Amino acid sequence: MRITMIGSGNVSTHLSAALKNAGHRIMQVYSPNIGHASLLAYHVSAEPTDDISTINAETDLYIIAVKDDAIEGIARQLAVHGKFIVHTSGATSLDVLKSVTPLAGVFYPLQTFSKDKELDFRSVPLCIEGATEVITSQLVELGQTISNNIYRVDSEQRKILHLSAVFACNFPNYLYHVAQNLLAEHQLDFNLLRPLIMETAEKVQHRFPASVQTGPAVRNDQQTMAAHLQLLDNDVFLQKLYQLLSEGVTKMVKN
Amino acid sequence: MRITMIGSGNVSTHLSAALKNAGHRIMQVYSPNIGHASLLAYHVSAEPTDDISTINAETDLYIIAVKDDAIEGIARQLAVHGKFIVHTSGATSLDVLKSVTPLAGVFYPLQTFSKDKELDFRSVPLCIEGATEVITSQLVELGQTISNNIYRVDSEQRKILHLSAVFACNFPNYLYHVAQNLLAEHQLDFNLLRPLIMETAEKVQHRFPASVQTGPAVRNDQQTMAAHLQLLDNDVFLQKLYQLLSEGVTKMVKN
Repeated sequence: MRITMIGSGNVSTHLSAALKNAGHRIMQVYSPNIGHASLLAYHVSAEPTDDISTINAETDLYIIAVKDDAIEGIARQLAVHGKFIVHTSGATSLDVLKSVTPLAGVFYPLQTFSKDKELDFRSVPLCIEGATEVITSQLVELGQTISNNIYRVDSEQRKILHLSAVFACNFPNYLYHVAQNLLAEHQLDFNLLRPLIMETAEKVQHRFPASVQTGPAVRNDQQTMAAHLQLLDNDVFLQKLYQLLSEGVTKMVKN
Repeated sequence: MRITMIGSGNVSTHLSAALKNAGHRIMQVYSPNIGHASLLAYHVSAEPTDDISTINAETDLYIIAVKDDAIEGIARQLAVHGKFIVHTSGATSLDVLKSVTPLAGVFYPLQTFSKDKELDFRSVPLCIEGATEVITSQLVELGQTISNNIYRVDSEQRKILHLSAVFACNFPNYLYHVAQNLLAEHQLDFNLLRPLIMETAEKVQHRFPASVQTGPAVRNDQQTMAAHLQLLDNDVFLQKLYQLLSEGVTKMVKN
């Protein structure tokens, strides 16, 4: 398939590499920053551009991987070419594209990407939605060339999925940061916690989280929780956070 | 070394297996539940007992892996034998043992254990403290037979470590649960999130969390955050939690 990438961020970088590796041709790469466009275009043997009006119709599919609020405006400019247009956003409804073209779809890779960290794209869940059943099927077929985890997810479900990803990824990462800060304040090495962080994630790969919950809150160990709050007495914000999360753990058990 | 295990829970199960595999002899296993004692004793070729008064002096070291508030009472009964006694608790000071014996130490494996999940003990950080420098050295030597990650950590640091482990393990697991519940309410499969959870943990194995933070809060994407709070409008608790965690992420960026 001939594919044009709009955007040169983390999602675009990983997605275009996976597509190229699967034998597809990346035609053009657009970014408002020509340096970024050129770097990615170089890696996937495409033509870079920082001028959206130079994006041409020599393609089968435009993949828009840019900030949510820029999707509609770009799609409107590309729609004139009469080719398929998908976005890659978890938080954006398909309707945003359908308002400018009937050839609309969503191609949402549910993963956290960093440009400098490789990952096996075949394990990335790809959430797919098309404006019609035919488009959905074609996108599923394309998806299967790069991932073993293809899901049909409609726009309402995708919103929930995006929200749940914030709870499962963004917030845990923030809590890792809190832990690392506590260690650093006491001359302790973050390496002490890294195996624990890995094992915590591994445990839920074949189990549900509620069945492997550990810690003072799930034991209702008031003495330890009081001691922890005492240790945090110079940080009212972290005390509040500790209490709220512990309250959540306690609710979890009751349910 | 001849070792006697007090307790038959997750820590005791993994620790005694690692010690036996390293060539140490497990002499007796105590649990107030004789079924639990017998099961673990069977696996490590030891003698089970549910009567603490039958624990004998035919050993070099007692490892106490029981609930925090039971440590002191048990140690007091074992101290008469004049052998080394260590506990495995993150939240308990060494002073609790020093009050009953001079041969006291701490042997705290910083990991989350489940009886039914194997793990490579050699990667588990072992936090060691002895009542004297000689005891510390001996415990370090013992620790090195089962783990590659030995740290000398005093009681004050260990308290912080235990607190930070709650933030890095217990609370993230609870957030996985929140995410799984959101998916289940909308007929979505938890498998959609499992690769994301793994990758989030993997990312911080060679980086600091602040450098890989993603999501709406770190971008200050107010529109997405408002949409997420809207999706949670039937759950005031989760709204509160979402707002507090997002506030934390925002602070993280500013610092």
